[in-house]
Order: sequence, then C-alpha cells, then structure tokens
Amino acid sequence: MGEDNYNQEIINWLTALDRALQQDDIEAACALFQDECYWRDLVTFTWNIKTLESLNDIRDMVQSQLSHIKPSNWQIDGDASHNDGVTESFFTFETEQARGRGYVRLKEGKCWTLLTTMVELKGYEERKGITREQGVDHGIDTERTTWKEKRDKEQAELGYTEQPYCVIIGGGQGGIILGARLRRLNVPTIIIEKNDRPGDSWRNRYKSLCLHDPVWYDHLPYMPFPDHWPVFAPKDQIGDWLEMYTKIMELNYWGKTECKSAHYDEDTGDWTVNVVRDGVPVTLKPKQLVMATGMSGKANIPDFPGLDGFEGEFQHSSQHPGPDGYEGKKCVVVGSNNSAHDIAAALWENGADVTMVQRSSTHVCKSDTLMDVALGGLYSEEAVAKGIDHHTADMIFASLPYKILPELQKPVYEEIEARDKDFYDRLKKAGFMLDFGEDGSGIFLKYLRRGSGYYM
Amino acid sequence: MGEDNYNQEIINWLTALDRALQQDDIEAACALFQDECYWRDLVTFTWNIKTLESLNDIRDMVQSQLSHIKPSNWQIDGDASHNDGVTESFFTFETEQARGRGYVRLKEGKCWTLLTTMVELKGYEERKGITREQGVDHGIDTERTTWKEKRDKEQAELGYTEQPYCVIIGGGQGGIILGARLRRLNVPTIIIEKNDRPGDSWRNRYKSLCLHDPVWYDHLPYMPFPDHWPVFAPKDQIGDWLEMYTKIMELNYWGKTECKSAHYDEDTGDWTVNVVRDGVPVTLKPKQLVMATGMSGKANIPDFPGLDGFEGEFQHSSQHPGPDGYEGKKCVVVGSNNSAHDIAAALWENGADVTMVQRSSTHVCKSDTLMDVALGGLYSEEAVAKGIDHHTADMIFASLPYKILPELQKPVYEEIEARDKDFYDRLKKAGFMLDFGEDGSGIFLKYLRRGSGYYM
Repeated sequence: MGEDNYNQEIINWLTALDRALQQDDIEAACALFQDECYWRDLVTFTWNIKTLESLNDIRDMVQSQLSHIKPSNWQIDGDASHNDGVTESFFTFETEQARGRGYVRLKEGKCWTLLTTMVELKGYEERKGITREQGVDHGIDTERTTWKEKRDKEQAELGYTEQPYCVIIGGGQGGIILGARLRRLNVPTIIIEKNDRPGDSWRNRYKSLCLHDPVWYDHLPYMPFPDHWPVFAPKDQIGDWLEMYTKIMELNYWGKTECKSAHYDEDTGDWTVNVVRDGVPVTLKPKQLVMATGMSGKANIPDFPGLDGFEGEFQHSSQHPGPDGYEGKKCVVVGSNNSAHDIAAALWENGADVTMVQRSSTHVCKSDTLMDVALGGLYSEEAVAKGIDHHTADMIFASLPYKILPELQKPVYEEIEARDKDFYDRLKKAGFMLDFGEDGSGIFLKYLRRGSGYYM
Repeated sequence: MGEDNYNQEIINWLTALDRALQQDDIEAACALFQDECYWRDLVTFTWNIKTLESLNDIRDMVQSQLSHIKPSNWQIDGDASHNDGVTESFFTFETEQARGRGYVRLKEGKCWTLLTTMVELKGYEERKGITREQGVDHGIDTERTTWKEKRDKEQAELGYTEQPYCVIIGGGQGGIILGARLRRLNVPTIIIEKNDRPGDSWRNRYKSLCLHDPVWYDHLPYMPFPDHWPVFAPKDQIGDWLEMYTKIMELNYWGKTECKSAHYDEDTGDWTVNVVRDGVPVTLKPKQLVMATGMSGKANIPDFPGLDGFEGEFQHSSQHPGPDGYEGKKCVVVGSNNSAHDIAAALWENGADVTMVQRSSTHVCKSDTLMDVALGGLYSEEAVAKGIDHHTADMIFASLPYKILPELQKPVYEEIEARDKDFYDRLKKAGFMLDFGEDGSGIFLKYLRRGSGYYM
C-alpha cells in the first residue's frame, strides 16, 4: 500500500468520525476505536488536560461534551506514515470555540491513540504574519503616542493604577514562556521573580552546569535559538537568552519581587496577592494566579543526625557555587544523580578530594547514547532535516498516552544497556549501584514518576 | 513548455558553461551569452564586487580569472520559472576556494544576466546545525573553563593584551551584522561606537521615527524577527533588538568609544587605530579596519546667510528630539524629504505652527502603494507564503544589474502615478513640487544615485 492509500485510510477515518459526531451518533463514533484505545485531549474537548484510557471513558466524555463542543471539519494535515501495522498522521479540526490540531494512530482502520489539542480560540487569534501590527499609523493623529511611551506607561501603571488579569509567580523559563504567550494574546500579565534578573535562576547554579537536554528539545516559543547555538547550552548563555527574550517579548517582569501571601475571594472572583517589590509592598488583584515555581525549585535537605554539630561547610546542591576555592579540601557529595555527579566531577577536576555517597541505585545513561537511541528520532539535526522540527516532535511525543509509554520505552533501554555493556560493567565493578527504572523503562519514566533518580 | 522543460533549459546552459570553462574554451563560454549581457559577481570570480556590462568585459574577466578560480559543479537549485520570454533560476557552483550560489536569466537559451555570489570559503565554514558546538565537554578535564569564564576573559583581554584581527568603526546595524558574521567565522573583532549602547543611533532620533522599510526587508542575519514583529518597527523597538542581538551574538562591542586617528603601515600590514574608550585612550593594532559609519551619518547643514544672528532654536534633523515642548511655537522645517515630513507632521500634531520650506522637487510615494506595487512581489507576507523569504528576495534583487534597473523600474512608477493620481493632483494644487526621479525610475534609483530626494 503506498503513501496515497495511507492518506486515504486516515481521511476515511476522519470523515467517518466527523459524520458520526455531526449526527450525534455516539455509538457510531465509538465503533471507530479499537478495544484498547486512548484519547488524549489538551483543552479542546474537555477544557482540561485529560487522557481517556478506555472506550467506556471515551464514550462518557463524548456523551457529556459533544453538544457544547460541536466538533467539525476534520482534515488530514500533511502525509500519513505507516510502520509495523500502525498508520498515523497529523490532522486539523474545529470546535465551536476553537481551532485544533491532532494526531491519530490507526490499527486495522480503527483508532488506537488520538490526540486533540487546541491551537487558538476563535476571535482571540494571535496577530502574526499577515495580521501583524503596522507599527506606524500613517496620517495625522494629535493623540499619537509612540511605542516607547505606551510601553513606559504600561510598566509604570500595571500593578498600581491598572490591575493585571494574570499574575505568574516564578520567572524561570516556565513563567517566561507563559508570559510570552499571554502577551501575544494581549492578556495583561505580571511575572514576579525573587531573583534580580530573568535568567538568574540559571546563572546562580554551580558553574559547570550546562543544559542536560539538547538544543532541539529546549527552544522557547516564537524565537528559536539561532542555528549555531550549542547542543548543550551553558547556564550563563541560557540566562542571557532568557533575559533578552523577556525584553524582546515585552513582558512585565518584576525582578527582586517575592510573594508573601495570596487569597482568593469566591464572591468577586479576584485574587489578592501581596508581594514585596524591591523592598516595597504592593497588592495585586488579578483574576488568575499561576504558580510557575518549578518542579525542582524546592531544596530537599535530609536531616542527618549530628548535622548540627558539623563544623565544616554544608550546602545543598542549589547553593553550591562551583569548585573554586575547594582545591585540596576533603568534600563529600551525598547523592549520586545529575547534580551530584556534575558537582563531584568539577570538584575533582579542581583538585578537591571528593567522596560520593550513594544511598540507592541510580539510572545512568551516556548522553551520546541517549541522543542516538532515545531522542534522535524526534529531537536531532537529522530529525530536523526530515522535517521534524521541535513543534512536530512535541506533538508526536504528546500523542503517546503515559499508560503505554513504559512498554514503548523498554526496548529502547534494552538497546542502550546492550550497547554500553562494557561501561555498565565497569560501573558495577567499581561498586556503583545501577538500575534502569523500576520496570526497565528508563530515564523519561523516572523523570515523570519521581523527577529524579538518574544521571545522564 | 512545462516547468520540467524550463528546468532542462537551465540545466543545459549550466552544463554547457561548465564544459566550456573546464576546457578553458573561453570563446565557447562567451557563445553562451546574449549580445546584451551582464555578469554581476560578488567576490567569487573577481574577489571584489563587480558588474560586467558587456560580452567583451565578461571575456576579459574570464580570461584573467579562470585559471585561479577553477569553477566547477554548476547545478540547478530549486525549480526554474519562466515569464515573458525569460527563463530564470537559482543555481549552485564551486570554485577551488569557495562554494557559491547564483541566479541566471536566459533569453532564447542564452544568458542575459548572471549573478555569482560567494556563500563560504572551503575550510572556513560557519559551524551551525549538524556542525554546531557541543557546549559541554563530557569527561574529565582539569583545565576546564566555562563559557562565561572564556567570554569574560575575551572581553578583558581583546584590545589590550590580545589584538583583534578586525576593528569596525560604527556600531549601527551595519557594523553589528558584519560583527556577527565575523564572530560566527571566529575572526577576533571589536566594534567601536560613540553612543553608550547598541541601538542608541536609533533611540536618539526624533521620537515619531519608525523604520521606513517593512519588516521583510529589515531582518538581520541569523536571528529573524519573531512573526508578530510590526511591519514598520518603531525606533526604540529596533534599538532594543540591536542591543539584544549584540549580546546574544556575543559581539565585542565597545560603546562610549570614539576613533581619534588611524594609520596603515604598508610594511607590517597593520593598522594603528587610536580610540578613546569611556575617557581612556586605547591603541588597537588590527589587520583590517572597516568604516561602518553609515551613508547618512554625517549631518548636511547648509550655511544660510544670517544664521549666526538667528536668536531662535536651530537644529539639524538628527538633533531634533521630537515635538514635545514646541506646542504653540513657530517652527520652520527646511527641506521636504522623509525626515522633514516626519518631523513637520509630529510638530503639527502637537500644536506647533509649522512651515515647510521646499527648495527642489521631491519624489513622494504612498507607503501602501509602494508596498503593493514595487516591493510586494519580493518583500511581503504574500511573497513569504510563496516561498520567497528575505534571503531569496535579496538574491533575486541583487541579480539585477544597476544598468538595467531604471528601465525595469519605470513601469512600476507609471503604475504608482496612475493609481494615486488624485493624491498627486492635490499635492500639486497645494504648491508642492513633485518628481519621480530624473528619468521617472522612482525611489530606489533616487536612493542609489543620491541617497535622498524622496518621501514615503
């Protein structure tokens, strides 16, 4: 069967789904799914992030949502591909309120996995390309204000005489990119951040830190890194990028600002957020409050008996400045995951006497092997050359329901273990405790399950 | 004749040229050109920027250069197009030292215009994409320095204990983008600029200034503006972009620095460049010195009789701060081109009593019409949608020899004059002196010939 026929298989399925949903024929829609089936919805059908893991759950969701959502216009987007009995493709669709994009996998003509994501709300499209602003108003306007005057006014007033619709607590990359999206949608937003400048949460870490994920995995929206950007960007370079990005995207970013308390009023639907900006208390009254404080932002400091009386220097990894000044000193690194290894190696390179303490086993993966075997198909220069840029890669990855991920990941880590057998043998021989995750499913599942437990 | 045949026509011509040049058969090569023919070379064949405007000049150039340049491997790049008897296409080729890209126009199978440009020197390719740097060195290295340490060291040493290979005088967009290109080629370079910060040469202009060329025409290399960027960017927004770009591209940019003198030593091949950096004299010893002070950087201030005794405020347009503070005052704007109109309109909008003095005629063009009729085919969202991004557009435009430009431009301005007839009639009626260039060839030729004389 050629590419055209795979396209037709997808088109037939989308057409049948469209017809069933238009006719409110939920059983006909359900008949288009495999017995084992998954529907992952990002906001479009459920106004939530939700994965339905059975035909029954799918039936219930469609029954409850169909009349509000009114989906239509399901169209194949690009060409289908076929591998190992699975035909898959991107597609586009609409609901009454939104335009969406999705990804579907068919087995024997029926749906195994379905992803539906929202691209934009109708009537609230971002202005870009053909709809970008003019920047100048030709003609005569006695009330004219310049871009700079508008921007200065906004920065002076927002949070004081004008209230933001949204406040984001935490100005790392997560807060910044949400802020950029909201700015492009003209939603008045303030990002507050306890550090001085955007990027400081990276700059303040131990000095040898580079990103652990490669460049194709790390792009921010709207402004991709230039094509000379290193594979694993050093922390200070990322810090500068975030600072520049915040400026260019015209975000209202309050550095040196801490949130002291926040309270939601059920009656008015307002938040009261008390912050201190550079020493001065300010009360913000947004409709929406977002916590973007990171999943690893809170230091986990175990309480070791006798720590109180310890007379040496004691730091959590987040407080460690780097190896300078520790030459010739005895250092103990408690832990054996990413930060521990980075810090221990940098100390050793700088002439410290380092001992690493390993409590439980660690999943170790060579970065090159991981890139090659696990990530390269979606995130690499080779993938980009095949037309899989990071937008496409993110969608394909998002289309895999977490429930089936372990089974898909295990063969990858079997290959990694076989390829680097000699390396793992030497680690074991040195007394290092190794694992590949509780079920052999590797680093990504370890990350999802506990956000820790690996070194790459 | 279909697209395939046009492609074949180009391929045949490139193959015949390749064969003639490989065999040193200059007459056979010349026989491939029309009687009226042009060869515009950017560095590849002539190591210079040169347009040959006759078959004799082409013959002489090939005779003198062929044995040094050794061109080969001429290949069509993309698909040919055909319009009005002219078949045209991009192509690639090589020389002994370089890889090139070009554009050819054929009439009846023979060359009417040829453009050859250098893309990169062999052995000095920019690292990007698949050859980008790693950013991190896995393994143990006791001499390891971080990105920030290297960058700090370079900034402390370059120009003092280490000499740059190149010094660029002038840190506007021209100096900055040359600096970026040299940085990507690992050529140690310092850019000196009298203003404090990158972008100040825009920030310091009259406050209503926006770019006069649209966004598709204005991109800097390596980092395109994001897709929400306005069509005509306000000066302060461009200022911020240049400042950010300089930082992200890691340029050695010396603000608050003026060049006092420069001297070339024929014997050593060194320049001695005396500069004052933030009040402190520094002597630089580069091999190359670039003047990037702009084509409009020097104020042209006519000497009017009686000016000495004038008791009012007197400014050149480059010193004008904008209309604030001139409300109710009598202002005379001497001149009637772009800056004069922008300044006069802003003064009028802010309640000043403005009189414009016009000495000689001005070529006036409505921005919308110009975009639509003259620029849109190459520089617009519609062009981008057809695959003509700014790189492609720049090449196509560069492929037109200046000698034939006026004839190509005249019909465009005839169309503009007809379309906006009512507008031009009203201007004439108000006593405004109009022209469309000395030969009716419009704004671009006026720009090339005198860099002035128009308002759009």
